[in-house]
Amino acid sequence: MNDPQPFPPAAPPPFLIVSAVRAALAEDLGLAGDITSVAIVPPTARVRAAFIAREPGVVAGLPCALSAFSLLDPDVRAGIVTPEGGRIDAGGVIATIEGPARAVLGAERVALNFLCHLSGIATLTAAIVAAIAGSRARLVCTRKTLPGLRALQKYAVRLGGGFNHRFGLDDAVLIKDNHIALAGSVREAVRQARAAVGHMVKIECEAETLAEVEQALAAGVDAVLLDNMTPAALAEAVALIDGRAVSEASGRITPETAPAIAASGVDLISAGWITHSPRALDIGLDVT
Amino acid sequence: MNDPQPFPPAAPPPFLIVSAVRAALAEDLGLAGDITSVAIVPPTARVRAAFIAREPGVVAGLPCALSAFSLLDPDVRAGIVTPEGGRIDAGGVIATIEGPARAVLGAERVALNFLCHLSGIATLTAAIVAAIAGSRARLVCTRKTLPGLRALQKYAVRLGGGFNHRFGLDDAVLIKDNHIALAGSVREAVRQARAAVGHMVKIECEAETLAEVEQALAAGVDAVLLDNMTPAALAEAVALIDGRAVSEASGRITPETAPAIAASGVDLISAGWITHSPRALDIGLDVT
Amino acid sequence: MNDPQPFPPAAPPPFLIVSAVRAALAEDLGLAGDITSVAIVPPTARVRAAFIAREPGVVAGLPCALSAFSLLDPDVRAGIVTPEGGRIDAGGVIATIEGPARAVLGAERVALNFLCHLSGIATLTAAIVAAIAGSRARLVCTRKTLPGLRALQKYAVRLGGGFNHRFGLDDAVLIKDNHIALAGSVREAVRQARAAVGHMVKIECEAETLAEVEQALAAGVDAVLLDNMTPAALAEAVALIDGRAVSEASGRITPETAPAIAASGVDLISAGWITHSPRALDIGLDVT
Amino acid sequence: MNDPQPFPPAAPPPFLIVSAVRAALAEDLGLAGDITSVAIVPPTARVRAAFIAREPGVVAGLPCALSAFSLLDPDVRAGIVTPEGGRIDAGGVIATIEGPARAVLGAERVALNFLCHLSGIATLTAAIVAAIAGSRARLVCTRKTLPGLRALQKYAVRLGGGFNHRFGLDDAVLIKDNHIALAGSVREAVRQARAAVGHMVKIECEAETLAEVEQALAAGVDAVLLDNMTPAALAEAVALIDGRAVSEASGRITPETAPAIAASGVDLISAGWITHSPRALDIGLDVT
Amino acid sequence: MNDPQPFPPAAPPPFLIVSAVRAALAEDLGLAGDITSVAIVPPTARVRAAFIAREPGVVAGLPCALSAFSLLDPDVRAGIVTPEGGRIDAGGVIATIEGPARAVLGAERVALNFLCHLSGIATLTAAIVAAIAGSRARLVCTRKTLPGLRALQKYAVRLGGGFNHRFGLDDAVLIKDNHIALAGSVREAVRQARAAVGHMVKIECEAETLAEVEQALAAGVDAVLLDNMTPAALAEAVALIDGRAVSEASGRITPETAPAIAASGVDLISAGWITHSPRALDIGLDVT
Amino acid sequence: MNDPQPFPPAAPPPFLIVSAVRAALAEDLGLAGDITSVAIVPPTARVRAAFIAREPGVVAGLPCALSAFSLLDPDVRAGIVTPEGGRIDAGGVIATIEGPARAVLGAERVALNFLCHLSGIATLTAAIVAAIAGSRARLVCTRKTLPGLRALQKYAVRLGGGFNHRFGLDDAVLIKDNHIALAGSVREAVRQARAAVGHMVKIECEAETLAEVEQALAAGVDAVLLDNMTPAALAEAVALIDGRAVSEASGRITPETAPAIAASGVDLISAGWITHSPRALDIGLDVT
Repeated sequence: MNDPQPFPPAAPPPFLIVSAVRAALAEDLGLAGDITSVAIVPPTARVRAAFIAREPGVVAGLPCALSAFSLLDPDVRAGIVTPEGGRIDAGGVIATIEGPARAVLGAERVALNFLCHLSGIATLTAAIVAAIAGSRARLVCTRKTLPGLRALQKYAVRLGGGFNHRFGLDDAVLIKDNHIALAGSVREAVRQARAAVGHMVKIECEAETLAEVEQALAAGVDAVLLDNMTPAALAEAVALIDGRAVSEASGRITPETAPAIAASGVDLISAGWITHSPRALDIGLDVT
Repeated sequence: MNDPQPFPPAAPPPFLIVSAVRAALAEDLGLAGDITSVAIVPPTARVRAAFIAREPGVVAGLPCALSAFSLLDPDVRAGIVTPEGGRIDAGGVIATIEGPARAVLGAERVALNFLCHLSGIATLTAAIVAAIAGSRARLVCTRKTLPGLRALQKYAVRLGGGFNHRFGLDDAVLIKDNHIALAGSVREAVRQARAAVGHMVKIECEAETLAEVEQALAAGVDAVLLDNMTPAALAEAVALIDGRAVSEASGRITPETAPAIAASGVDLISAGWITHSPRALDIGLDVT
Repeated sequence: MNDPQPFPPAAPPPFLIVSAVRAALAEDLGLAGDITSVAIVPPTARVRAAFIAREPGVVAGLPCALSAFSLLDPDVRAGIVTPEGGRIDAGGVIATIEGPARAVLGAERVALNFLCHLSGIATLTAAIVAAIAGSRARLVCTRKTLPGLRALQKYAVRLGGGFNHRFGLDDAVLIKDNHIALAGSVREAVRQARAAVGHMVKIECEAETLAEVEQALAAGVDAVLLDNMTPAALAEAVALIDGRAVSEASGRITPETAPAIAASGVDLISAGWITHSPRALDIGLDVT
Repeated sequence: MNDPQPFPPAAPPPFLIVSAVRAALAEDLGLAGDITSVAIVPPTARVRAAFIAREPGVVAGLPCALSAFSLLDPDVRAGIVTPEGGRIDAGGVIATIEGPARAVLGAERVALNFLCHLSGIATLTAAIVAAIAGSRARLVCTRKTLPGLRALQKYAVRLGGGFNHRFGLDDAVLIKDNHIALAGSVREAVRQARAAVGHMVKIECEAETLAEVEQALAAGVDAVLLDNMTPAALAEAVALIDGRAVSEASGRITPETAPAIAASGVDLISAGWITHSPRALDIGLDVT
Repeated sequence: MNDPQPFPPAAPPPFLIVSAVRAALAEDLGLAGDITSVAIVPPTARVRAAFIAREPGVVAGLPCALSAFSLLDPDVRAGIVTPEGGRIDAGGVIATIEGPARAVLGAERVALNFLCHLSGIATLTAAIVAAIAGSRARLVCTRKTLPGLRALQKYAVRLGGGFNHRFGLDDAVLIKDNHIALAGSVREAVRQARAAVGHMVKIECEAETLAEVEQALAAGVDAVLLDNMTPAALAEAVALIDGRAVSEASGRITPETAPAIAASGVDLISAGWITHSPRALDIGLDVT
Repeated sequence: MNDPQPFPPAAPPPFLIVSAVRAALAEDLGLAGDITSVAIVPPTARVRAAFIAREPGVVAGLPCALSAFSLLDPDVRAGIVTPEGGRIDAGGVIATIEGPARAVLGAERVALNFLCHLSGIATLTAAIVAAIAGSRARLVCTRKTLPGLRALQKYAVRLGGGFNHRFGLDDAVLIKDNHIALAGSVREAVRQARAAVGHMVKIECEAETLAEVEQALAAGVDAVLLDNMTPAALAEAVALIDGRAVSEASGRITPETAPAIAASGVDLISAGWITHSPRALDIGLDVT
């Protein structure tokens, strides 16, 4: 499944970026604003500053970070040195900022909160993607995202070289054990789904045994979710599927465990923790 | 500083909880809703389910998790087994749920996204708090939070036994190196802050050397932030401060490094990563 | 494709219904409110009323209509006589209302604006669906919806027995002539799409000639959009496709033209006007 | 009542247009955005396009349509060829667009959804207005609008040469049969209204018989609503009213029925369907 | 114009009240909430309290005040002693409250901010209304309101016995000197207005001289605004108008100046300061 | 406490100003907009106008006032003559405006509603501040603000030379009589607060007697609120406090009573009415 991506990932539209950043600034500024800077920094003072990576990684979140400054003062100017999705070494410059000191200091934390979190996701993603390079497997993220941040988190996954699984409950069918139990069987669950949803909607079904895999294939699913199987069991399932559907492995994926899973021949490896438990990339804003 | 807390931490008001959860549901449901459950689950089907911890931890986020269900269907009933802030073992039951199957399955992921993230924060916090038990130090969280989630994250820190540093730029003065550079000196920066802010606002100042600590004390600060100092240097600074101000240590705090830092006698240990990089607690919703 | 639907269509979640109705009430009440009723109707007066169809049709929008009353006064009681998706004759009762007269009269127009519009869509849909009964074709609606009303309009289409095509630009790929022109060929456009999108995303491609149909099939599309073709040309295309992809016909669909199109053997018939130009069903609220 | 309008109708203020269009874009883009264009269209590609009428009509909604593009990318440029309220023939150019291809294709449908719907309203309005030209009657629209679209729909009616009746329940008194029943008589209903409302509020009263017309006039109403009367009955009522109040005819108004109604001498003809059931004008965006 | 009002004024609809109060609570609670009460008040403590007037006045704003408590905790119970619009003496009880102490103390200030402000407006209004009792004049408020509070302020005016002039620029025409200057004359300004606006819209025109009054009447205005005239000049103008239009006096209205102005025979006296500069009524919440 | 303020007060961030003004414009324009200007003023007409003070005062609210015009039409140009916080005499020019007449007239009232209200607050504040000049006392405002306007009102207080007490319940602890009663004693209330809140949170406690003052000091409060004491009693309390805490006097503060209170030696004088009952400054917009 791993053709080269035609173009770099696209950020959410500008008005959504601005709206997310405005909410974050409101959260940080409260009613009284940045009382420290207003007390100490002359209104006319200007500073230059640079976003510096303190550790190597993949950059994500620059449109958010730069919006934070311009929302406080449109007079802030920015120069991007390492673009979205670019790799950066420890000490490398991500972007430079010049403008009124109050706006630069006042927006610094909000800008970093977006940039460090999203770059952390992109960096983790890239590490796993690198670990499975050469295999046919794509890394995909899940709906285990942090509330309110899904569109940005999934964009960061794409910047790290990963792909997105469902964005929500609305864009594809994923039949899990509880659905199967309520429908009575894999066959019946898939049949009902096919009858109910539109023709542009794919159907994936969880399978815990090879028998269930076979049942799902017979029912005509587009993809089979193989949860928490060993690499050996995955290989067996992949052989059984034999291209009749997309195969997805999930469960405890790390850069260490991913290669063996990818070697099983699965099409997709899904990992929830790259969005629900990412470590922020260490980035600072150095005033110069 | 470590008197016992009089009462358990209080959750944000109900209307804020509801508003955060409604936004998360909207993000997950899109325009088409939970197409899988609507296709497969009869409208009249009911299920019982339980939130089960897959690993030990501290529970946080139940008001959010339970709201997710009742916002989809007011007919869902919940029973809390381990309350907010309670410790739970692997396999322990956090809460039980009973109601229309569509609502239970449709809200499951949103409920877990809140519960796992916030419980992860509370659990990490509790681990560090336990590590420094017996010292005079309090663990405090910072403004390094995830955009849009600050109030909930800081509440989770309190549930884990930690305290909150500033909630935003608006509620206290924290003078950092850039402010000092722009003001010319620690003395001048503090003087300006004191003149500008209200009498209910405390002033903390970063200090990188003992000379700066002394200067800050002379200027009458309420607290001194000692960033990235060794335990030995911290102990020296604490001796110098000698109760004239609150002392706060920051930088690379983990359950492993915290005891030595606490042993230096500082009043506070601040940690950004408990809110910017927490690992989610592994919790599942088991349908029974 | 036309298995019987397992369950009746599900309405959007209650909080989205309430939010749409609240906005409509705010639009109608302005700052001064229902000045006529407040002037003339005693605050304690109560009325009984009934929604009566003035012409036959399919009912859609009751959750919105009833919310309008309860948002003005929780003391209004409703009894549903003909449920969502039910057929009604001229003179038939859809629902009864009892409560404070001011709330009933004040919410009447907003309630009817939802109910007549959505029932109009369901009724039109049902007419076309009836016209193609017996064929393999499903009727689907498009993204030609009225701004802000998409989720409700698509729900009304389902109530009328139709299906939903894409809900937005985000949930599936639909390659049109402009995309093909920019990519250089159908083959290249499909290849790029396949490489870029997730495994749960289907790809449909517009085709204007049999050659293009063949090219799209070779590129592995999930569905082919046959725009503005005659029934004869459609039949030829369907024969060529031969089950290798879903076939969709579009263009000038009415209850009169639909049977011939359906007879061509296409899987789907898409109609924009059932959502962009529906005639409202004539329904009144009779106070009794 | 039919003096020439001094100036062309004014659009809602820019911030309301932007807010409506932003909501429509959010509805169409979801969390994942225009996945087709992002996959296939190079980020640097630019296109020229033109809004072309596929049938004759009156243009309405350009401010909305053009905002859709600039909200996706401020680099899109537009040139208006046929301005708001202008008549256009089949094949005529309404406006030209030039800019980044992704923004043009991504905003196309939202732009057209506004433009076709509002132009449809303006075109229908103009047809009825033309049918009653030469009479003293004005065509007015009602509160039978689609939820959330009232300000824009009423603006489109003005562009088509019509006038607006009430914008909401708040800006004038309209006493209907239910109010009269609750008050006991036309006389009492009007008296109460007069006592309660401000001096800038006009009062209209529905009348079903000549006796009720006379009663309403005696009570001093500003306008009389004559619902579902024949042209002959209307002429009789107009003669009775004799300029003492504004006369309004309503019920089943079409370009065909309107002339006879207008010939009765009424001041106003009100039509709900021009806003609740308009047919969209057929307009396309042709990329060149 | 001063018939007795048929019914007591009606409050804005519940969802608007709730939305205004929720915003005020969010403003007061910030991210951290009522840190004082959470620290000191046991979660299970309950209190009884009463709203007590510290000075005589007219009560307004109870729906807002009581909502503040129930939004914090639905378990708070209230008993209304002096209803909306009722007169109260110093020391009188307006309402009693019983419930969780944290919610009562946490919502107290927000509740009082609404209640004192709106009761202040009602009380001032009532004082002027009393001063002109016996005359034919009504007291009306203007668009000189405080941003965001217009609907509530105008409701308070009605509770005090006053009437509302325009709610906004949208509900009636008021031609002022600048409009006249731009149109060229009173006659032309009125003619243009009549041609442009709907039949349910009244037209008032400012007049500074008797000549202008005559011109406005000749042009057929519904009302004449007589700004800053002496009582004698007003009487002359009223005589000239002679019932052909409503007469409105404005400018520096107080309980002291109002009687002489009312004695001139004008229909309306408008006062901006009752909404832009009201003194809050002194009300306290006494915990018992 | 009265060092000179280092810099002029800073306005809330631009996006909050714009959001407040947009809401006020929406409130004033309704769905139909400024129907008077649209009827009478040619779309191409331009005007010059000036904000003129009709009485002396301190200017506050210009960013809001000027935003009102540019939100209606970005083509409006403004020139500030008397900046924020500047003193102005009767007849003085605050700012000049030039631009499309419709936008100038349409935004006039909203602009003035902000400007007159906020300048009224700044002017009252300045009057009291002037009355206590030479004393050590600062004037502070309270949480007795008008709903939705707190950030702007507190900014206006700063422009008038006053200081801000708490912005909300969240940023400092203020222990009042009810808290003390619930805790059992001043000592216990303060102890609980100290244990519960963060180190950046100050604690103030109300005291009604010298004994309570002493108790509060012994408990280590940062500030003591002396409510409704005579100047003599205040002086006694100040002597007792003797610099161990900040002293705050409240109750019935006016320019007349303030000097005697300030002479008692208190650090702070708090006044609720400068925000809950300010008289608007009389400012007009003169078209030239």
